Amino acid sequence: MPAMDPPVDDAPASGPGRLPPTIEWRDGKVRLIDQRRLPAELVFLEASSVAELCDAISQLAIRGAPALGVAGAMGVALAAHRGEDPPAAAARLIATRPTAVNLRWGVERALAADDPLREALAMAAEDSERNRSLGRHGATLLPDRCQVLTHCNAGSLACADYGTALGVIRSAHEAGKGPRVWVDETRPIMQGSRLTAWELARLGIPATVLVDGAAGSVMARGQIDCVVVGADRIAANGDVANKIGTYSLAVLARHHHIPFYVAAPLSTVDLACRSGAHIPVEQRHADEVAVFGERRVVPAGVAIANPAFDVTPARLVTAIITDAGIARRPYRPALRGLFSLPAGG
Amino acid sequence: MPAMDPPVDDAPASGPGRLPPTIEWRDGKVRLIDQRRLPAELVFLEASSVAELCDAISQLAIRGAPALGVAGAMGVALAAHRGEDPPAAAARLIATRPTAVNLRWGVERALAADDPLREALAMAAEDSERNRSLGRHGATLLPDRCQVLTHCNAGSLACADYGTALGVIRSAHEAGKGPRVWVDETRPIMQGSRLTAWELARLGIPATVLVDGAAGSVMARGQIDCVVVGADRIAANGDVANKIGTYSLAVLARHHHIPFYVAAPLSTVDLACRSGAHIPVEQRHADEVAVFGERRVVPAGVAIANPAFDVTPARLVTAIITDAGIARRPYRPALRGLFSLPAGG
Repeated sequence: MPAMDPPVDDAPASGPGRLPPTIEWRDGKVRLIDQRRLPAELVFLEASSVAELCDAISQLAIRGAPALGVAGAMGVALAAHRGEDPPAAAARLIATRPTAVNLRWGVERALAADDPLREALAMAAEDSERNRSLGRHGATLLPDRCQVLTHCNAGSLACADYGTALGVIRSAHEAGKGPRVWVDETRPIMQGSRLTAWELARLGIPATVLVDGAAGSVMARGQIDCVVVGADRIAANGDVANKIGTYSLAVLARHHHIPFYVAAPLSTVDLACRSGAHIPVEQRHADEVAVFGERRVVPAGVAIANPAFDVTPARLVTAIITDAGIARRPYRPALRGLFSLPAGG
Repeated sequence: MPAMDPPVDDAPASGPGRLPPTIEWRDGKVRLIDQRRLPAELVFLEASSVAELCDAISQLAIRGAPALGVAGAMGVALAAHRGEDPPAAAARLIATRPTAVNLRWGVERALAADDPLREALAMAAEDSERNRSLGRHGATLLPDRCQVLTHCNAGSLACADYGTALGVIRSAHEAGKGPRVWVDETRPIMQGSRLTAWELARLGIPATVLVDGAAGSVMARGQIDCVVVGADRIAANGDVANKIGTYSLAVLARHHHIPFYVAAPLSTVDLACRSGAHIPVEQRHADEVAVFGERRVVPAGVAIANPAFDVTPARLVTAIITDAGIARRPYRPALRGLFSLPAGG
């Protein structure tokens, strides 16, 4: 990213307030919240070339399945706007995050459109509408005053707007159900601490952060009524790729007889992918684990494994909440059925 | 701690090499490895008063159940040496870490002795001998070329010498069994990354660090043959208090049909404590979770839960490996039986 004077939002970092757009088209550039700087400061990054946008994606300045769909589409629009070759730009954009099916979906949708920019803007608007619909469906599953555990960030920051897993919680909150949220900090990138806790504080929804290893013992104490997470890709059989740590939560939820819900727009479902065994799992740089703040915490010469995602088998998923409705086992026919319904229906 | 010119060890941080004593009596002071500085540098801290030693314990410059037993005894010796009131010193020492039964045990043993220093030195020597015995018992449970997962640090740094859970792995390594180790980084204090990985690198035992949330998916891939952890306190019925995250691993191990072993000297077994429900769980400062390196990662105004330990029920523990032998279910008679044997027998 080139140096720039970043625009700074003065809205308070905690307390009820609006959440700014995660990504938008502005003056021929793609403007997005630089999520690496949260929660300390709300800074916007403006990508004026496909290369800059690819850097922003690969460095996680923007992340989250639905947001990456819009980012991919806007990347193609940016290539067209700048006179770069759209198919070449598409390939570079898709390669930045191999697990995220929405990124590829957004890129391909914009590439097939007569006007990539109009398509990208339509996708952002649809994303907002879809997530509100998904939230309404999901909120019906949450009992009053329930305690919900979530992992990573599947909120407004992971989308163009509103959020998926956090959209479910937000919809329950708006309906007066009074949910309280346990937030896994989500090592190594801390999307739970940094992003989910920031969103919940802005929305005035009570939240408690805990280390990932503590979720099991909180479940054992009876303090978690359900788990709601997002997804980076859902296979046709209902297997779910999501942030590393999700699978462990699904096993723990099963052990404690707690419902485990996955919330994602239908665009996250990849019907061409038969099962989780066919989902590529991105391995990220060892320094995400080895360097803690500015300090190296793993001694030199010791190996590090840093898979970004894991795959949760469908049998551990209680329900998949989409914008088109709620799917339950067996997922293969249930997901196919939702695709035949109008979105939001 | 007062400022001082810390002695620095020049031994390489990685590669085969000796492990220095975790804690020792030297020139009327208690000299210990300052574990907060690892793995970046091996620095020794010298406590010349009970207050300094209490600070070192509460700030985790020294930690680990068996090491705290020796530290407690040396604290009483330090009080006697300095002309401080030993019973008052004992109470202050015990209050620093409420879950660790060995700390109280070490303090009370030195307090009851005619010569607290001789008693403390005897305890350190016994600890070394006991851990080697424990390691030999435990190594019989590890198949050749096995992949072992461990959590937190139950190594030489958690003891006067050799280690408990790592002592089992070390004994298997010395017996030519070629174990390979998966090391949970262990949030929030990173004892896995910082301490366990450092010890294993020095001992030349292959190790791979991973975030705590990744252990489940590595188990699902069939890459973990057993789990070996230490313990901070074991109740008479075999319930185990250990570092937060241990319980989740026990549930995950059960789900994947992987043996889950707890390695601890008999002094960690508290026969007066009927079950895990009676073990107090220390809640530590929120900043351990909220501040990442020098940076605040949890927004202000968001609650944080930071339990230092969790309790794993005996039914999830495949075996308890002690210096006196291996206990299996039902644990109440098995543990009582081990107490009647000579230590090391």
